[in-house]
Amino acid sequence: MGIIVQKYGGTSVGTIAKIKNVAKKILAAKAAGDQVVAVVSAMGQTTDALIAKIKKLAPLSAPREYDALVSIGENESAALLAQAILAQGGQAVSLTGWQAGIRTEDNHSKCKIIDVDARRIRQELNAGKIVVVAGFQGINSSGDVTTIGRGGSDTSAVVLAAALEARVCEIYTDVDGVYTADPRALPEARRLTAISHEEMLELASLGAGVMHPRAVECAKVNNMTLAVKHSQKTGKGTLITMAGEKLNTVAGVAADDNVAKIGLMRVPDAPGVAAELFGALAAARINVDVIVQSIHQEARKNDISFTVANEDYDRALKLTKEKARSWPGCAAAGNTAVAKISVVGIGMASSPGVAARMFAALGRAKINIQMISTSEIKISCIIEKKELKRALKAVHAAFGLASVKKAGSCGI
Amino acid sequence: MGIIVQKYGGTSVGTIAKIKNVAKKILAAKAAGDQVVAVVSAMGQTTDALIAKIKKLAPLSAPREYDALVSIGENESAALLAQAILAQGGQAVSLTGWQAGIRTEDNHSKCKIIDVDARRIRQELNAGKIVVVAGFQGINSSGDVTTIGRGGSDTSAVVLAAALEARVCEIYTDVDGVYTADPRALPEARRLTAISHEEMLELASLGAGVMHPRAVECAKVNNMTLAVKHSQKTGKGTLITMAGEKLNTVAGVAADDNVAKIGLMRVPDAPGVAAELFGALAAARINVDVIVQSIHQEARKNDISFTVANEDYDRALKLTKEKARSWPGCAAAGNTAVAKISVVGIGMASSPGVAARMFAALGRAKINIQMISTSEIKISCIIEKKELKRALKAVHAAFGLASVKKAGSCGI
Repeated sequence: MGIIVQKYGGTSVGTIAKIKNVAKKILAAKAAGDQVVAVVSAMGQTTDALIAKIKKLAPLSAPREYDALVSIGENESAALLAQAILAQGGQAVSLTGWQAGIRTEDNHSKCKIIDVDARRIRQELNAGKIVVVAGFQGINSSGDVTTIGRGGSDTSAVVLAAALEARVCEIYTDVDGVYTADPRALPEARRLTAISHEEMLELASLGAGVMHPRAVECAKVNNMTLAVKHSQKTGKGTLITMAGEKLNTVAGVAADDNVAKIGLMRVPDAPGVAAELFGALAAARINVDVIVQSIHQEARKNDISFTVANEDYDRALKLTKEKARSWPGCAAAGNTAVAKISVVGIGMASSPGVAARMFAALGRAKINIQMISTSEIKISCIIEKKELKRALKAVHAAFGLASVKKAGSCGI
Repeated sequence: MGIIVQKYGGTSVGTIAKIKNVAKKILAAKAAGDQVVAVVSAMGQTTDALIAKIKKLAPLSAPREYDALVSIGENESAALLAQAILAQGGQAVSLTGWQAGIRTEDNHSKCKIIDVDARRIRQELNAGKIVVVAGFQGINSSGDVTTIGRGGSDTSAVVLAAALEARVCEIYTDVDGVYTADPRALPEARRLTAISHEEMLELASLGAGVMHPRAVECAKVNNMTLAVKHSQKTGKGTLITMAGEKLNTVAGVAADDNVAKIGLMRVPDAPGVAAELFGALAAARINVDVIVQSIHQEARKNDISFTVANEDYDRALKLTKEKARSWPGCAAAGNTAVAKISVVGIGMASSPGVAARMFAALGRAKINIQMISTSEIKISCIIEKKELKRALKAVHAAFGLASVKKAGSCGI
């Protein structure tokens, strides 16, 4: 046996009763012979409540104090979970991010983990203890508490698993695995037994909220197998692993309605123009997703369209309009009534016709495609927001993802 | 000018609005030219809510995890107060106990502060910042978070004031100073302009809940002047300082109904018997207050009575009965319907007749005295609980504490 790292999200430790269940699960893993490190998020809505308090003091809070404040939700759940394990007769110790040796960049909120000094964790494991680590947080070179962005407990777990050379990192959550589509939106969606890091990465960044993309990226870089499981049920869950022999042609379909579109007409066709626009957006920390550039009917002019998350839309549109004013004849406009539907599959690159099949499915459903973006393992279409649910159903069916017969072929 | 340390209790930072007020007060102190360190307790009922959660997991929680949990209330209020100061245009940084260099003993819950490594605080002060420190907590030699007992933020403040050689340590609370008696129980009670550490120590240990006794003890040892003031009002408060020329004969009267009495009859009159009884109680961490021993009518037997706090009564009575069974003929019994009334004054030692005047006042009010205990600066009487309010009024009047004319003579 070896070391396993288990991560429990906010809903998994949302109540005292759930914390007791989680303690039971951890003790079972320990009894099976592994050394166990459990990484926890804050209980349910704790972090949101803390954020609400600091916002009442200042709409734009100071990042250092913001981190000092919002990190305490994880300290709470870690101490409670360790106590629950002790109460059930196990040996346990809770560690904050700094006690666990999680060292981050110096900046605050959304900073990255630099490395882990795992001496304290190893010492506690070797003393026979289950180590419960507060996720989402670390310490910087000034000795200040930092946080690594919302959903960051996934990343904490993967980084610790890599540092401890754990044999597996289990992500316990409120769903029982990764599905071919969001089962709340599409009841016929099917749980995948396995998926590659790359596919999961695309699905995660597409809004299939099972895991934080940075955590998947980190697992991929470290060759770490992840197992996504339900925290309050038993079940095999979904393995996220290096791509093996059998490749999913299409692993899943993701529907994302947190999308807004911005279009520019008659942008000068000159070197550096796109860099100027997207550089300004990046400087404002606005993430741009799909970008499409096409030649405008006038000579030496282009049209550029791109999408951003809804929460960045107002700022992005303002910035884009400012840029547009500096280019003669250029005009910018936005539209929030759009959504994105994507198919993801690592076998796509070697299976021609996936894009055609997706476009055909949307066409049969009379759904107009506004923008298309493709990568090696993903095809995304921007469509009207009100068509999203029908599009999901149509595309999911077109790739036969719900059928039992197909299930085997989705194994990697 | 110099450094001042200000401590704000749980009710003083109980709401966002109150935190804003406190920030204003701190900024005014800074504007007056001092470097300011503010020590905060947890907001209102936060710590009690955390304790309730851990008690649901285990009636007897593990001390290490208990400390890890209950300390976070102070982290929250410190970060919020620092944010409030920043939002009002000041410069501020919040520090946890470990960041502030507060090092404690290794044991958990109620442990003592060993020393302060004030380098980080001095560095932040010299950078022009107001330093907000989470009270009630420190770090031990294992790198674990410890707490120093309920009310311990007072002690944190005094220890920091001593380490920083602050010119004053201001204790902001929900009363505007130290009174000759609890003004909620006795409206004619009067605010003292000054009181000695010794008197305050007796009053604090007698249940006049303005300050934690350990904090006063610590101030006395370090020759530190304390100023008790109201956190939401202006006012001079009460100075707690080294005894000067003018001594209070009686500074105040304290009424304490958190008292239970245990009596033993026919205890063997032999060396080591009292040590055996009180040693067993001490080992169970039960604080014994008043102890009276008298000779029983039988030869070579004594009667012993003592008082404990109500919360320790059941455990204390059980232990005492066990001991009693080991002494032939000895019997133990308890009574929770008692209370304690005490007069405190540093001039008492050189003013004969204080005890007589107190007993006479109680006698005139037809209140029976069950036990008497005296020290250099204090006389306590155990009486029936239901007589406490009348006793307070009678004794307070007997020493003329309410009269304006006497006010001057209470200055030290």
